[in-house]
Amino acid sequence: MIYLDFNRTTPLAPSVLEAMQPYWATHFMLPGQEHSQAQAVGESLEQARESVAAMVGCDPFEIVFTSGGTEANNLAICGQLNAAPASRSQAIRSALGSGDTVSGDRTGTGRIHVLVSELEHDSVLAAAFSLSGDQVDVELVPCQENGVVDPAQVESMLRPNTRLVCLQLANPVLGTLQRVREVADVCHNRGVSVHCDATQAFGKLPVDVSQLRADTVAVSGHKFYGPKGSGAVYVRRGLHLSPICHGEPREMGLRPGAENIPACIGLGAAAHLASRCESEVSDNFGELSDRFLNGLESSLGESPILLASGTPRIANTMAIEMPCDAGAIQKAARHLVFATAQSAQPPDEITRSLKAIGRTETQIRRTIRVSLGWTTSRDQIDRAVSLLADACDSVMTR
Amino acid sequence: MIYLDFNRTTPLAPSVLEAMQPYWATHFMLPGQEHSQAQAVGESLEQARESVAAMVGCDPFEIVFTSGGTEANNLAICGQLNAAPASRSQAIRSALGSGDTVSGDRTGTGRIHVLVSELEHDSVLAAAFSLSGDQVDVELVPCQENGVVDPAQVESMLRPNTRLVCLQLANPVLGTLQRVREVADVCHNRGVSVHCDATQAFGKLPVDVSQLRADTVAVSGHKFYGPKGSGAVYVRRGLHLSPICHGEPREMGLRPGAENIPACIGLGAAAHLASRCESEVSDNFGELSDRFLNGLESSLGESPILLASGTPRIANTMAIEMPCDAGAIQKAARHLVFATAQSAQPPDEITRSLKAIGRTETQIRRTIRVSLGWTTSRDQIDRAVSLLADACDSVMTR
Repeated sequence: MIYLDFNRTTPLAPSVLEAMQPYWATHFMLPGQEHSQAQAVGESLEQARESVAAMVGCDPFEIVFTSGGTEANNLAICGQLNAAPASRSQAIRSALGSGDTVSGDRTGTGRIHVLVSELEHDSVLAAAFSLSGDQVDVELVPCQENGVVDPAQVESMLRPNTRLVCLQLANPVLGTLQRVREVADVCHNRGVSVHCDATQAFGKLPVDVSQLRADTVAVSGHKFYGPKGSGAVYVRRGLHLSPICHGEPREMGLRPGAENIPACIGLGAAAHLASRCESEVSDNFGELSDRFLNGLESSLGESPILLASGTPRIANTMAIEMPCDAGAIQKAARHLVFATAQSAQPPDEITRSLKAIGRTETQIRRTIRVSLGWTTSRDQIDRAVSLLADACDSVMTR
Repeated sequence: MIYLDFNRTTPLAPSVLEAMQPYWATHFMLPGQEHSQAQAVGESLEQARESVAAMVGCDPFEIVFTSGGTEANNLAICGQLNAAPASRSQAIRSALGSGDTVSGDRTGTGRIHVLVSELEHDSVLAAAFSLSGDQVDVELVPCQENGVVDPAQVESMLRPNTRLVCLQLANPVLGTLQRVREVADVCHNRGVSVHCDATQAFGKLPVDVSQLRADTVAVSGHKFYGPKGSGAVYVRRGLHLSPICHGEPREMGLRPGAENIPACIGLGAAAHLASRCESEVSDNFGELSDRFLNGLESSLGESPILLASGTPRIANTMAIEMPCDAGAIQKAARHLVFATAQSAQPPDEITRSLKAIGRTETQIRRTIRVSLGWTTSRDQIDRAVSLLADACDSVMTR
């Protein structure tokens, strides 16, 4: 089987698994106890935090571990907008007798306004819209036909009460890179925060929050060869969030519960790997993508239509319009794993992204999303091309 | 090193680790795709759910996987009390174009009342108090000096607007078993739901939700030899909860995000283990606990004071008042891991439980919590007794 669906999930890298192994049954204690073994676990946890911080270019105390990208997006968005009123934070503190809870209080009591790009992940859209109602207005920002949200468009939609703009770094379907820094500069001039879901960018290109200038950034381990159930959110120093889950304060007061030590260690190891191989990975993706597109052109006898091709993109991701139905191709090419739109109504992520750049339903049904990984080889590319071409042949000559 | 702190966390059982291994890098795909490998992963996930359901005595569709016990408690409590207004659920559905979100709507708009036993875990207390404010009143139920909450006390505190009662099954510090079924019967007669944090009971005694009759029950994997970062909540069929984290609906609409497949598989394997060895484990704990207490009596030359000793308890847990300062004993017995109160103000879990049964500050400072595990041997018990006795000697003859 040839797996070309790395944007959905990746296998764990061998070195990441190796890094995690001691923490299952040997170093299984939790930090925060006096014993030397527990303290050693705590030190390993902080080293993992440093590795993640190094990958995103921030200080370790700006990294909060979560159970994944979805929780990271929810914590960044709901934690900022749904800040607990002072009375509630006080109630929790009294109940636990603790003074440690970090909790922002919503400033002002008027309605607030939130902008979310229409290209965002389900968890970003759903987190934002979960708050919409009496206190919060949520509005979608359209993207251009090239798959990029125009910063001028964001600026034109800002209102005096806008509090937050959510803009991803790389689109998982089209691969387009968003102009997050320009949007952040526009927003910061108006006192607006920016949340950036960067989950599709890590392991594919260097990410540096001091360049991005977003206030919060989401990380998901299983998108770059780290463990499922691992993630983090970068929270700019000085930005106050409220936890979305409650308990004994851990993770700078933003996430309670026993630390998932193996997952945090694994995320740190994956971050270390990603930091080391960024430039070579990106070059390799570029070469393999060209090989894939050229091979497809030769085999099909016509140019495949690569969507959003004129735009800066993560080099591993190709949304390609095929000459026939993508679902039928997938059925015919059983040993090849790639992504297609699964559901038009309700629209899935692929359908939403393709609709956003103006593709018709027929075009969407013909589109495949191919995403390469670190382990993708030239041989796999060649075989994938051949499987795809054969599948197209068999579908079109039926 | 002798580890007698299994109520805090347990090492992963070898068979659990073995069950998880294939899902890191080989069967790494996510369910919900058409490919046969993805579907096989989906089937494994459902088998894991069946194992957890078998452990708690419910149907598989009543089990929602979470990232741990803290999230399970939060989802059960906040998901029930903070049900999203219909307008918000509708907003999320429209944003994602989805009709699948399962979301309860708070019935009525008046204030509601919640009772929480004072013996509860931080995450239960904090989740309940996070909701307190304009709409929700939260009240603590005291326990008796024997470490048990009296069902008649709960009944006397019910109000016409009481919606939820939170009562744990086993106290992690005292080991006392709460009269959950009696409380549930009282509550159900008055239309009140019961949430039971049973995280300390699994792996120690049989738990059957049809006997307990709680409406929601929290499970935490790392408390019974499963992976950290794994957990579940039993949600009685017909009970409507709202998710506390938002995204593409998974887990019966109650938890979004990519499934943490290895953690779920691990929880299933741990549940399978726990279901198999319940009775022998319990007998073994009883024998070892007696051996420990008798040994301590011989070595110290006086009877150790076992707290809540006259009450039905999980047999692995002993809160024991020592003849001298517990922190000093811990420092002197460096190769023995047990638990002591770490912080009087804010009070930690041990301090809170001991205060709840009327122990004074001096008594609390002298109390150790010893919790045995499946791997605890007679030899370890004997050595632990000897280490403890030596430590007491050295502390008292200073």
